[in-house]
Amino acid sequence: MSNTSYDTYRENVAGRADVEDTPELVAYYKDLDRLKAGALWTVANKIEPWQPKSDSVPVLWRYRELRDHVLRSVSLVTPEKAGRRVIYLNNPGRQEVSAAVGWLYSGLQVMHPGEAASAHAHSSSALRFIMEGRGAYTIVDGHKMTLGANDFVLTPNGTWHEHGVEADGLPCIWQDGLDIPLVNALEAGFYAVHPDLSQAVGYPVDDSVSIWGAAGLRPQNVGWSKPYSPLFKYQWEPTYEALRKLSGAREDNPFDGALMHYTNPVSGGHVMATIGASMQLLRPGFEGKAHRHTGSFLYQVAKGKGYSIINGQRFDWQERDIFCVPSWAWHEHVNASQSEDACLFCFNDLPVMEKLGLYREEALADNGGHQPVLSQE
Amino acid sequence: MSNTSYDTYRENVAGRADVEDTPELVAYYKDLDRLKAGALWTVANKIEPWQPKSDSVPVLWRYRELRDHVLRSVSLVTPEKAGRRVIYLNNPGRQEVSAAVGWLYSGLQVMHPGEAASAHAHSSSALRFIMEGRGAYTIVDGHKMTLGANDFVLTPNGTWHEHGVEADGLPCIWQDGLDIPLVNALEAGFYAVHPDLSQAVGYPVDDSVSIWGAAGLRPQNVGWSKPYSPLFKYQWEPTYEALRKLSGAREDNPFDGALMHYTNPVSGGHVMATIGASMQLLRPGFEGKAHRHTGSFLYQVAKGKGYSIINGQRFDWQERDIFCVPSWAWHEHVNASQSEDACLFCFNDLPVMEKLGLYREEALADNGGHQPVLSQE
Amino acid sequence: MSNTSYDTYRENVAGRADVEDTPELVAYYKDLDRLKAGALWTVANKIEPWQPKSDSVPVLWRYRELRDHVLRSVSLVTPEKAGRRVIYLNNPGRQEVSAAVGWLYSGLQVMHPGEAASAHAHSSSALRFIMEGRGAYTIVDGHKMTLGANDFVLTPNGTWHEHGVEADGLPCIWQDGLDIPLVNALEAGFYAVHPDLSQAVGYPVDDSVSIWGAAGLRPQNVGWSKPYSPLFKYQWEPTYEALRKLSGAREDNPFDGALMHYTNPVSGGHVMATIGASMQLLRPGFEGKAHRHTGSFLYQVAKGKGYSIINGQRFDWQERDIFCVPSWAWHEHVNASQSEDACLFCFNDLPVMEKLGLYREEALADNGGHQPVLSQE
Amino acid sequence: MSNTSYDTYRENVAGRADVEDTPELVAYYKDLDRLKAGALWTVANKIEPWQPKSDSVPVLWRYRELRDHVLRSVSLVTPEKAGRRVIYLNNPGRQEVSAAVGWLYSGLQVMHPGEAASAHAHSSSALRFIMEGRGAYTIVDGHKMTLGANDFVLTPNGTWHEHGVEADGLPCIWQDGLDIPLVNALEAGFYAVHPDLSQAVGYPVDDSVSIWGAAGLRPQNVGWSKPYSPLFKYQWEPTYEALRKLSGAREDNPFDGALMHYTNPVSGGHVMATIGASMQLLRPGFEGKAHRHTGSFLYQVAKGKGYSIINGQRFDWQERDIFCVPSWAWHEHVNASQSEDACLFCFNDLPVMEKLGLYREEALADNGGHQPVLSQE
Repeated sequence: MSNTSYDTYRENVAGRADVEDTPELVAYYKDLDRLKAGALWTVANKIEPWQPKSDSVPVLWRYRELRDHVLRSVSLVTPEKAGRRVIYLNNPGRQEVSAAVGWLYSGLQVMHPGEAASAHAHSSSALRFIMEGRGAYTIVDGHKMTLGANDFVLTPNGTWHEHGVEADGLPCIWQDGLDIPLVNALEAGFYAVHPDLSQAVGYPVDDSVSIWGAAGLRPQNVGWSKPYSPLFKYQWEPTYEALRKLSGAREDNPFDGALMHYTNPVSGGHVMATIGASMQLLRPGFEGKAHRHTGSFLYQVAKGKGYSIINGQRFDWQERDIFCVPSWAWHEHVNASQSEDACLFCFNDLPVMEKLGLYREEALADNGGHQPVLSQE
Repeated sequence: MSNTSYDTYRENVAGRADVEDTPELVAYYKDLDRLKAGALWTVANKIEPWQPKSDSVPVLWRYRELRDHVLRSVSLVTPEKAGRRVIYLNNPGRQEVSAAVGWLYSGLQVMHPGEAASAHAHSSSALRFIMEGRGAYTIVDGHKMTLGANDFVLTPNGTWHEHGVEADGLPCIWQDGLDIPLVNALEAGFYAVHPDLSQAVGYPVDDSVSIWGAAGLRPQNVGWSKPYSPLFKYQWEPTYEALRKLSGAREDNPFDGALMHYTNPVSGGHVMATIGASMQLLRPGFEGKAHRHTGSFLYQVAKGKGYSIINGQRFDWQERDIFCVPSWAWHEHVNASQSEDACLFCFNDLPVMEKLGLYREEALADNGGHQPVLSQE
Repeated sequence: MSNTSYDTYRENVAGRADVEDTPELVAYYKDLDRLKAGALWTVANKIEPWQPKSDSVPVLWRYRELRDHVLRSVSLVTPEKAGRRVIYLNNPGRQEVSAAVGWLYSGLQVMHPGEAASAHAHSSSALRFIMEGRGAYTIVDGHKMTLGANDFVLTPNGTWHEHGVEADGLPCIWQDGLDIPLVNALEAGFYAVHPDLSQAVGYPVDDSVSIWGAAGLRPQNVGWSKPYSPLFKYQWEPTYEALRKLSGAREDNPFDGALMHYTNPVSGGHVMATIGASMQLLRPGFEGKAHRHTGSFLYQVAKGKGYSIINGQRFDWQERDIFCVPSWAWHEHVNASQSEDACLFCFNDLPVMEKLGLYREEALADNGGHQPVLSQE
Repeated sequence: MSNTSYDTYRENVAGRADVEDTPELVAYYKDLDRLKAGALWTVANKIEPWQPKSDSVPVLWRYRELRDHVLRSVSLVTPEKAGRRVIYLNNPGRQEVSAAVGWLYSGLQVMHPGEAASAHAHSSSALRFIMEGRGAYTIVDGHKMTLGANDFVLTPNGTWHEHGVEADGLPCIWQDGLDIPLVNALEAGFYAVHPDLSQAVGYPVDDSVSIWGAAGLRPQNVGWSKPYSPLFKYQWEPTYEALRKLSGAREDNPFDGALMHYTNPVSGGHVMATIGASMQLLRPGFEGKAHRHTGSFLYQVAKGKGYSIINGQRFDWQERDIFCVPSWAWHEHVNASQSEDACLFCFNDLPVMEKLGLYREEALADNGGHQPVLSQE
């Protein structure tokens, strides 16, 4: 900031900063620089924008393009050397923080039968969404869970967790989702490797589901005061069935069709302190309207095919594709099939937006609620 | 209280009242009477007991004894004349408030195919537990629910509600549970008859279950801030399945086997503001230990047979029998079968005890945790 | 209930019970009696009233009438024999539960310099409101507080507490308020005498006020998760000053003038789990309008003189008088002075009404919001 | 990231990534780059650090150095041109986001008698801490407040607010504190200029204090459900008095002496959704021990003089100096006077850390809890 101009952000609007550089002022600014200070009016319009402008760009990651690279990593690195064998999604606008969108990290992890990653714990909240394979499992604080396609699993903030694939399974790929960029930005990240590199399983397999996975029922004498759900696994079949029932019982939401948030049964709230997740069903022929809201959202197509228009750009998607909607970006979703449901899994930072009082949304008023398509990815 | 003695409750214990009547004191007490006042030490030991002593007595109501009388009411009174055709349970210690136990009312209601009761609303919270028949339904604020045996249904505080049996059904009997005595005691009861005597059904049948009845999932855009659960019906089959899973996933509770509280999915808490409910499974051969706690509990045997020992009295029960456990009464439950599960439905005033900071419990320490049986009902 | 009539409560209104006794029905009712059961329609209209009808009657207790009797108790009984030397207020409609109104107990306690009552603990929540004297103190769980006129003190549910008057003080009288009748009714009352009959003082005198008594400030590192306020004493001077400021900063409430609830600074809610309390200021000449609400309220005149009209009956009050407003009774308050403020202290069961979803209120619509005066006490 | 090495972050530790670049791997990485993806193991050790390492550096801003520059801005720019005449604190490690520390912005604003800034609203939460002058005022949503030295004022998220100095006042300087960098980072910032450029005052001056500023008292009938405190001004005198009382009533906290958090009286929690604030008193001669915790903290010396050691660097401070403690930095505070209190005002992002489950702290175990001083600023 030494010899550049200081009046880049001027706006000729009452109530906004509009100060032209003069030699006297520039000298003054340099004095301030030396005191580790600056004049607010040189940056006010930059740091107080009229509305959010995301650094992230809308991206569609096609699974058919990524899958081979993911599988190839198996021959390139061992789990021991790599820690975890993951290809992460690198939003062009967020490369310096390795984010897929906003402050959310995501990657595709692959594991072969008989492999296991070492156990660790971190301040970041984490989740997995299973894409393909057979025999995958996760262990969270001694609770082992078996995993199938479209199952959604939590490995929350502070828990010991590890993943593996049974020896008699098939190669497995899943999507990881974490708030690593957020936790780093907040300078609150701790990381620990388990002293034994793996945990003992201390409970019946899938006990979390057996104990907490019943609708409208809470087990007696199982206290739970942690800031995340004690239900660690949300299976695909009952989720899909729930969406179909919901879809039959009330009108679609104009933007999202039939959408359900995964919840912590103890509180009815989000599954983890910083990350929310949902699954939504777009009926055959559903054409959603456009809206925008704060918060960052990363989608995986769990079922079907269709397209989304994000800030005027059309992205055609099919099963297993992943795409992101940055904060305050207009977006609308369409199921391209007239006969099959489409389902979108999503994880997001809604808990952060809501707790900090920063959630805001707006429906597109013009053009019947639909964006003009400016480009196609 | 005119010419009786005033020193009935004396206790010769430091810190307790121990004042003997004298002519001077009695004259003084009479002066106070005239001023609508009294001397605390004449009643202190009465109104500040060392521990609770319930006015309710343990009772077992045998369904085989009550059923014929319940059915007979059909020929004796019409729903129009009776309002509702219900035989209520009248605890010998609580006759003046028409309570089954403590401040909880309960009754057995019967309805024939094609009959319907008029719609009303009241400050009391209410529930139903279905005992037999086919074609029963309940409508709550326009939401209609179909009902089968062992289904549990809410008709909460302030909602318009009505019951009926479809014309092609069978005679139906269910248990009603309400906090009428409590609401009356708190002098807060309002009652209204629906202006049209019946409601229009405004939603798909069983939509409450379709929208709110999925484990770990919350519908988007369905706000709910009422003090009761939006899930109005809890069906038997998934409840029983949940108990069997719970039972397989962790050790039994020594007093209650595998017990689950019905919950409000929005908050994870009790189903209504004043009434809680649970279902518990006693495995074949389960012999529970004795404990006691504050709060009043009314049980219905949903499945199986066995017995409970309550304050030293043994009550043998079988399917559909109802029994009560008064506040601070020792109790233990036994499944008498070595091959079949036994299941107990229960409703109670736990929300009141918990919110008011009055819940307390104690395990029986002596005799291996089991009461000596002093009598048998 | 043996040979009386069963059709006392008939109402000829659609949706209400209206069944006439017949010999067949009476025989049926007697059969039910034997089974510890009854026919709901014989009691339905009684137990489901259209609106609350309180058992309590409005009462004004004049201090000038009670005071001598209170003082006389000093010569009649010792604190050791009496436990506590208290004259309790005995509502004519609530004598069997020793309540002043609804489920609230209240009494006037007197203590001479150098006297101390033994320490005890109970499930009931308790408060004191100081009326006269000098040198009174209370110890709550080792925290000692000094007390002056119009100070309000908590001795919450479960705490060890004791009262006394310093040797160099003057005879003291205060009002006790407790929820003893409620806790007894809920069959949840436990009582314990302190093993040493008195507690050691373990903290600086009035430390509760020093630590928790600052507006808009919370001490660091003092966790507090109990269901009552850690601020045990609310002094008169700052309370009166707060009311005067409130009164100057916004319009009066039409019913209550300027009213402030005493609060738990940790939560912003009521001071205890079952009892709320407030102080209100009626400006010179204030003439409140009438309203009614659920809940039981007991007032003490902390300052000034005026009158209240309760269910059409006028009660003229002056400083230290006590009066009650039963549930759902119309009431309006008037400051009879054109130059002096009047202040009313009140404690009530609002926390119970609110937590259980039973609070309801209504303004009087007719007659400009004022009741006709039917009688004068 | 095109032709640089990819193995910069290798760690030879079990459970960490340790993959050496090979030509095959580098080619693979470049393939991934083209797909907007990357290999996690190339960045894992970077984005998952063992513990937080703040980008912010400890800084002390000396008021005697800044004050002249602040005052000089009056002659350099008008409020109309500048929007607000503020010199902001620019942490050398956080220049790109204009933060004083972490995600917190702060600046010194100056205003001359008769001047007023235009009214605006934004998603950021804001506060002011008054440093010098006479006649300053703030208007928040129509509520006007007068301000004196060491008064603390809120202008919360979403409120219309404006500042000014009365025509008969003196030039005023205050510190502004905002979460602008955080709200920008979360891409949730909205900004609006008041349509009239200034608000009408709709309430008595300082009514917020009159209504909400009484300890342990809550006004009746003033609902408040916003995520910030309705008490907008916290005055110096009662705050200082509260700290002195606290200091006399219990032992000092070993790290912070006597510290009180400013609170929202409605909830007992932090004053705003994203920003917390506190005032602490270090008694004469207080030598605090060292600890560290997550979260960013900016201090202003409200009274006295002393020094703080932050990550081994000693910063000597006196009244009005400002300094920061970055996340996870060791810090200890010392009052250099043996006769006078020292007081530190602080604002921070504790609400964010707590709500997101990211707060963690640690006491320094070595060397009697004190850091060796490595350098002196």
